[in-house]
Amino acid sequence: MNIAVDAMGGDHAPAAVVKGAIQAAVDMGIDITLVGDSEILAREIASNASSGHIAIHHCNEAVQMDEPPLKAIRKKSDSSIRVAFELAKKGDVDAVVSAGNSGATLAAGIMTLGRIADVERPAIAGLLPGERGPVVLIDVGANVNCRPAHLFQFGVMANAFACSCLGMENPKVGLLSVGEEECKGNEQVRLAYELFEKSQLNFIGNVEGRDIFSGDVEIIVCDGFVGNVALKLSEGMVKIMTKLLKTELLKSFVGRTILLLGRQPFERFRKKFDYEEYGGAPLLGINGVGIVCHGGSSSTAIKNAIKLAALYVENRVLEKMIASLNTVFGPGIQSDIA
Amino acid sequence: MNIAVDAMGGDHAPAAVVKGAIQAAVDMGIDITLVGDSEILAREIASNASSGHIAIHHCNEAVQMDEPPLKAIRKKSDSSIRVAFELAKKGDVDAVVSAGNSGATLAAGIMTLGRIADVERPAIAGLLPGERGPVVLIDVGANVNCRPAHLFQFGVMANAFACSCLGMENPKVGLLSVGEEECKGNEQVRLAYELFEKSQLNFIGNVEGRDIFSGDVEIIVCDGFVGNVALKLSEGMVKIMTKLLKTELLKSFVGRTILLLGRQPFERFRKKFDYEEYGGAPLLGINGVGIVCHGGSSSTAIKNAIKLAALYVENRVLEKMIASLNTVFGPGIQSDIA
Repeated sequence: MNIAVDAMGGDHAPAAVVKGAIQAAVDMGIDITLVGDSEILAREIASNASSGHIAIHHCNEAVQMDEPPLKAIRKKSDSSIRVAFELAKKGDVDAVVSAGNSGATLAAGIMTLGRIADVERPAIAGLLPGERGPVVLIDVGANVNCRPAHLFQFGVMANAFACSCLGMENPKVGLLSVGEEECKGNEQVRLAYELFEKSQLNFIGNVEGRDIFSGDVEIIVCDGFVGNVALKLSEGMVKIMTKLLKTELLKSFVGRTILLLGRQPFERFRKKFDYEEYGGAPLLGINGVGIVCHGGSSSTAIKNAIKLAALYVENRVLEKMIASLNTVFGPGIQSDIA
Repeated sequence: MNIAVDAMGGDHAPAAVVKGAIQAAVDMGIDITLVGDSEILAREIASNASSGHIAIHHCNEAVQMDEPPLKAIRKKSDSSIRVAFELAKKGDVDAVVSAGNSGATLAAGIMTLGRIADVERPAIAGLLPGERGPVVLIDVGANVNCRPAHLFQFGVMANAFACSCLGMENPKVGLLSVGEEECKGNEQVRLAYELFEKSQLNFIGNVEGRDIFSGDVEIIVCDGFVGNVALKLSEGMVKIMTKLLKTELLKSFVGRTILLLGRQPFERFRKKFDYEEYGGAPLLGINGVGIVCHGGSSSTAIKNAIKLAALYVENRVLEKMIASLNTVFGPGIQSDIA
């Protein structure tokens, strides 16, 4: 297996990206192709102790975090993220991992690999730490406006991903809304509710914001606007709550002692809510494998994202997703997109 | 000052509501009118030690938590929440507090007191615990679909409320979106951005989910769907994080000792994120004062909601909000609603 890593993408690129890629190569024994400026990358690789099976694929450009995604991808044909997906298209690599501009990663993935037949809107599936294991939140930012049929497709794709890649069995699927009753929500959600209800998915109805971390639902479907707000809010809350707990404890002698004594439980607690543990968010609906990482990814996050990509490839998630979409929709789904 | 409390509304009504009302009456020396079944309420009052200035206004009906709001309010003309707002309309009380069906509270408030002239959509302003004090999130559930001009009005109303009731000076106003750049978000947000940018408000542009608790923005504007998800997600996260921290600590002897020793810092930490501290969410845009409480409100939450209602009345927030709306929009705002 060979995984392409966009070595120029991310707030801490290339150092953290290269380090994480090397860790993945060593730990998992997979081949990595770092895409980016060969001179810089060779230096980075040299500054790390062990290198595993790491190759460099040179390119001259990189998309910046604040560039308009579509424009950047069209203009920069030799950018690391676009070149990485082109390697996947040619079959030189099996998957692409990037912590760069997520809109550009999405655009490059769709433009280069294309969409799965009949999928109108690929989506990003965020993996959140639930009380009883990961929760898949889809979409977390690819589509700010969605039609009901798009939401339903997100659910079908996430279901296939959760079963084949995360080992879930018949995961519970919920539709994110403002109340549990069928009548609650906006029109888009109410119509999507009907589609889910008629399906073979283990649909449990509407769920609310408070259910995202409750562990009572494994797949939560929403549009990319709501999902993005929810994802970033939860990340922000973990950060602020951890910080404030520390602040409160530092205020007293007893508290400082507690901090000293309690390293292990506090560390386990912190890890439970750490996005790094999940590494990245798969791009579902493209005709290939792409993992979008947090811009601020550390080397650990990159390593775990590569691990997720490897699982995705090994478990033939793409094939199973296509089969699943065919079973649900049959040929000619386009006519159902309303 | 006299505040009507819907004594039949809420998961723990009437016990918790009556207890909270009595606490408020005693602590703050204000008159309370409990609206509900007089026999039940007299018994509840009797079971509490001190009663303060508490009166009972009898009514025969109550709206249940799961009833369709509008239908229930229209049908149940003698329901506690409707009667409470009718007392406000007649001038017998200065404000209404309810922990009942929030949709019904909203509907009863609008139907009975009417809207402030030119406000097309009243909204619920949620108060969240920010790092540097409360953050106003508007709307948290009154309007699942909003036009850009509605979002702008929410901002103007929240600004007037934050300044006159929470003592904020020139609070920073942000528009909740999926990225900081002006171009990010859906069409509704992009158009609202332009309205905010032209205004006199201290508009800082788009903010993201992670900014809600950062303390860098005091007023966050969004539609009621997104706001409701965000509010409930944050409540859910606080609950689950507190629980998991405890679970981790209980796993070891050291951890159990920490829990025992650390009561005070842990309690301060818990309080920092406790929605009870803010009590309720004001209904902005109605021609009067209404506070919507969490369905699961404890007596402390009810007491604090009554305190908020009293502040709202004392500080003449409604008058100031009307003046503020007039300054921003002038007469004939309706034509601007697009």
